[in-house]
Amino acid sequence: MDPLLLSLLAALVSIFVGLYFYKRVNDHDPGTPRMVEIAGAISEGARAFLKRQYMTLAIFVVVVGIILTFFIDVNMAIAYVIGAVCSGLAGLLGMDVAIKANVRTANASRKGINQAFKVAFYGGAVMGLAVVGLALLGITVLYWIYKDVNIVLGFSFGASSIALFAKAGGGIYTKTADIGADLVGKVEMNIPEDDPRNPAVIADNVGDNVGDVAGMGADIFDSYVASIIAAMILGVEIMEIKGALFPLLLAAAGILASVIGMYFVKIRKKEHPGAALNRGTFSTCIVFAILAYLVSIFLGVDINIYLATIAGLVAGVVIGITTDYFTSIDRPLVKNIAESAKTGAAINILSGFSFGLISVAPPVIGICIAMVIAWNLAGIYGISIAAIGMLSITGMIVSSDAYGPIVDNAKGIAEQSHLGEKIIAIADQLDAAGNTAKAVTKGFAIGAAALTVLALFAAYAEITEISSIDLMNPYVITGAFIGAMMPPLLCALLILGVGKNAFKMVEEIRRQFKEIPGLMKGKAKPDYARCVDIATKGALKELILPSILSLVVPVATGFLLGKYALGGFLAGSILTGIIFALLMANAGGAWDNAKKYIEEGNFGGKGSEAHKAAVVGDTVGDPFKDTAGPSINTLITVMSLSASVFAPLILKYMLIR
Amino acid sequence: MDPLLLSLLAALVSIFVGLYFYKRVNDHDPGTPRMVEIAGAISEGARAFLKRQYMTLAIFVVVVGIILTFFIDVNMAIAYVIGAVCSGLAGLLGMDVAIKANVRTANASRKGINQAFKVAFYGGAVMGLAVVGLALLGITVLYWIYKDVNIVLGFSFGASSIALFAKAGGGIYTKTADIGADLVGKVEMNIPEDDPRNPAVIADNVGDNVGDVAGMGADIFDSYVASIIAAMILGVEIMEIKGALFPLLLAAAGILASVIGMYFVKIRKKEHPGAALNRGTFSTCIVFAILAYLVSIFLGVDINIYLATIAGLVAGVVIGITTDYFTSIDRPLVKNIAESAKTGAAINILSGFSFGLISVAPPVIGICIAMVIAWNLAGIYGISIAAIGMLSITGMIVSSDAYGPIVDNAKGIAEQSHLGEKIIAIADQLDAAGNTAKAVTKGFAIGAAALTVLALFAAYAEITEISSIDLMNPYVITGAFIGAMMPPLLCALLILGVGKNAFKMVEEIRRQFKEIPGLMKGKAKPDYARCVDIATKGALKELILPSILSLVVPVATGFLLGKYALGGFLAGSILTGIIFALLMANAGGAWDNAKKYIEEGNFGGKGSEAHKAAVVGDTVGDPFKDTAGPSINTLITVMSLSASVFAPLILKYMLIR
Repeated sequence: MDPLLLSLLAALVSIFVGLYFYKRVNDHDPGTPRMVEIAGAISEGARAFLKRQYMTLAIFVVVVGIILTFFIDVNMAIAYVIGAVCSGLAGLLGMDVAIKANVRTANASRKGINQAFKVAFYGGAVMGLAVVGLALLGITVLYWIYKDVNIVLGFSFGASSIALFAKAGGGIYTKTADIGADLVGKVEMNIPEDDPRNPAVIADNVGDNVGDVAGMGADIFDSYVASIIAAMILGVEIMEIKGALFPLLLAAAGILASVIGMYFVKIRKKEHPGAALNRGTFSTCIVFAILAYLVSIFLGVDINIYLATIAGLVAGVVIGITTDYFTSIDRPLVKNIAESAKTGAAINILSGFSFGLISVAPPVIGICIAMVIAWNLAGIYGISIAAIGMLSITGMIVSSDAYGPIVDNAKGIAEQSHLGEKIIAIADQLDAAGNTAKAVTKGFAIGAAALTVLALFAAYAEITEISSIDLMNPYVITGAFIGAMMPPLLCALLILGVGKNAFKMVEEIRRQFKEIPGLMKGKAKPDYARCVDIATKGALKELILPSILSLVVPVATGFLLGKYALGGFLAGSILTGIIFALLMANAGGAWDNAKKYIEEGNFGGKGSEAHKAAVVGDTVGDPFKDTAGPSINTLITVMSLSASVFAPLILKYMLIR
Repeated sequence: MDPLLLSLLAALVSIFVGLYFYKRVNDHDPGTPRMVEIAGAISEGARAFLKRQYMTLAIFVVVVGIILTFFIDVNMAIAYVIGAVCSGLAGLLGMDVAIKANVRTANASRKGINQAFKVAFYGGAVMGLAVVGLALLGITVLYWIYKDVNIVLGFSFGASSIALFAKAGGGIYTKTADIGADLVGKVEMNIPEDDPRNPAVIADNVGDNVGDVAGMGADIFDSYVASIIAAMILGVEIMEIKGALFPLLLAAAGILASVIGMYFVKIRKKEHPGAALNRGTFSTCIVFAILAYLVSIFLGVDINIYLATIAGLVAGVVIGITTDYFTSIDRPLVKNIAESAKTGAAINILSGFSFGLISVAPPVIGICIAMVIAWNLAGIYGISIAAIGMLSITGMIVSSDAYGPIVDNAKGIAEQSHLGEKIIAIADQLDAAGNTAKAVTKGFAIGAAALTVLALFAAYAEITEISSIDLMNPYVITGAFIGAMMPPLLCALLILGVGKNAFKMVEEIRRQFKEIPGLMKGKAKPDYARCVDIATKGALKELILPSILSLVVPVATGFLLGKYALGGFLAGSILTGIIFALLMANAGGAWDNAKKYIEEGNFGGKGSEAHKAAVVGDTVGDPFKDTAGPSINTLITVMSLSASVFAPLILKYMLIR
């Protein structure tokens, strides 16, 4: 039996199970007319954004496709376009079901927490299965046709470009709306979150879907594909075709493990919903470890290579758990940050920022240990396989992750449709579980991205026939400096983008409250569409510069300073990329939870001076954790891929040899 | 004539001119009894801190000295102790004259701005001349005796250890007092800065002296020495003794240029005092360029090596100018940050942070260009010579820099002794000039530190006989990750230290306002000593962990992961070190000036919501720019030196070869 058939089969299973879940979600009742109306507004706003975004992307994809056709290879261009389309499709599908699942989860809450949890989780699972299914399908088919991993690289590059736009654009959108809504609604007008009188409330809900669902899906799609392809490139060098098949079958094993793991995601008697999600993740890990062993026996792969897979998997879990320590509301650090809010906003920010910096250490050490173990087991191929080990369970990870924004939105819809205290309490419980799961999955995502880019770095060296990237060479150091500057630069551009748009949003919300009579009393409806429009236009405008920089700077470095400098560039970008990604994610998460901790009644509770200070911290953290942080993963992947894809051209024309 | 005699002569000239300036400052009248009393309190607090700090340091120096004696070489240990003593002496002397100059500047303001400016600048110049004089004296004498650059390395290591303690400890002290005084005084009690009723006002003034004068002096002493010694180590490899003499004579030329440059620092008719300072810096540069040329002819050094010196010098100036763009109150970015304060503290912080991140790019590119040019001119020796080119004018740079805290304190003393509006206005003008000069000198300091550590990095490779540090080696990458984490980790520990102590300080100030009757009305005196004591104890306690980590982690990395990993470690620490140093310095400076811009009456002026938001940004920026940022320079130097000094031991016992 052709092993590729197995991989194809797994991809199709994933897609079909996903479609089945989609149907199950869709079969639920969307609820009252008011709920249908709100869901309609969210859906409309999200589609409008995605349509405009995809149109911009289409131009971009066509331009890059033409460049690839003329300068590299037409087949590479085809693979590129397919990669972009698959990634976009996964995002679209995931967002579509999320919008359906939001309102249905809210409605199902009326029947109890178990019902609601199921709808939300199945909604998330559609996204998870779509991501892994479409990714594996695309890679398998392209490899089957071309039998050339370098062409499949184009698929990964396509997925990455889309991911960067989706993540950065969605990230700017969601935080523009969120910060704008909060600054005027909560702080100035003293109305609660998700209040229908707030003109930005729909934009805020749309943001959760385009940023946290579609953006996140594209982001992980990107890492997932890149890790498989990096391993294939390195694998064929040492074991020929078997080296390419092993990553594919590991991915297939991961898909089956995820589907089995999803079976375990059920709330047992009086159990906290978060426990159900975590049980799913851990079952998936165990099943994957067994299936991966069978795969390595089936292909006759060295046991050491199998162990490298497990090293990656274990490191992922460890990273997830340590992340939890720094951001969980039940841990001392978050309480410490909350306490520091008593001295004012500045100290709150300083302590959250500092703990964010410290939180970088454990996962980085975890990544290094996994890398060194994997390398000792199986050389550089081992590192790439460890990355797959981490990412193999992506199906399950994305499902838990997408669950978060779905329940978050469900809560919003419940509040806007006045479903009552009890229902909102259920939605709250579901939401809290989403946050717990998120910490674990976020650790996975960053760890996996780190190992993936390390593997891509090795793949770049393989492609450019570099045997050593020497830090004693000043061009390499220069490259490393430029590369190291890219993640902070991207962070800055994205955060400024959010700030600029939030400023406009605030002005618009203030204007509506001033000019629409009766709005505050709930007698008139706000102009939701205007706010959606500001967020959409702003996000698209602000993502262009960072996206272009991320494609142009590495290639320009290669042309001007040579292939070794470009190697240094990639290494530099990985170092600071991982540090900034972790800092942004964890500091943001910690501020958010510190605020929640105060809202639970500690240090003066809601409305106290400490609370006001914590709100400032939370607002600073918003673009940290939801815009800049997650975009860095994609940035470093897209830069690595860009270097590898344009390597033939760089080798030909580089100025310094 | 022995060239070493020239170098010795220049060192002695520097010390004698310094002593002459000291006498001139001391000859001025310290003013009214009230002024003498305040100056006495500041002096007492500063001495108490320094005494305790130096006692802690003495223990540390003895322990390290014993370790060096037993494991490395007794002569190295002697050089180490002498380095520590010289660095400490320069700090002590500088601080001593600063405290004298503070009050005399305040008093001289009564005779007009020119008189006051002279006292303040001569006060700063004592520090500048003490730093370069003692440094060059120590190196020259040790080299004369031992004729072995590796032993002189011990001198640099000694200076560095002291610098880290002085900078980190002083930085924590000064911001503990500053933030504590501001949070209660300005924000809660609504009394102006430097108000004598504030119990922390003396601690705040002491902080300026121990942090900005003594700490800064030790910091630049450290870079200055390290750059000379790195060049000597690399120089003897390629040109034998001439390679060691050239850096020494360049330093001597720099000292003479600085003394000549100081002659030009006089306020011409109606001129802004900042212009006088800048004229001094630029004259020093020109004179140095000429003298350096004569030195290279005298020694018969290749013209390309001379040109590398100039590349460094020019890069320093360019970096200074671009730094100014990001932090100057007259530039659009600071106004932009101030405007964003209208939307609240969070957006103000986000935009300052983002511009801080972007500000990293120009100087880093400047450093890279200087490095590549210097390397193409004269190989790795060229890079070390470029570092000397930048640092040669240290005498002048430190003088301008130390001028800043002197006039700042003078202003404080003028306010506390009620010298009246007109005098305070003069002090204000002098203070503003200090800030302008600071931007230029800060750029120099960071740029020079960057080139210095790059040269030290090369010196480490030279000492350990490494010919290539390959990024394809997972141990090198692991080392790079660990090294890259060190600067953010240090930042975090120092900032948390400030936060923790500021918290205690706030409690104490609140307590005094509550428990001392009549304090608010000015009828009772606050307990200044308690506040001084809190700052002192806290600073010493909090600097221990970061200081030890910076010595232990590089050495441990070498033992556990081998010499290549340690090379990667140093490279990683340089990359993130420079990025974080620039981010912290520039974001902090920009927030500070954004606040000042609002206080000038823009966007609502003092007391407006925007102003309150800007105060939060300024407070966040305080430990960024005055504690963590400047400590990073020292951190990366001390780590590089620690690696080189312990290299023989590491080579013997490292686990991975």
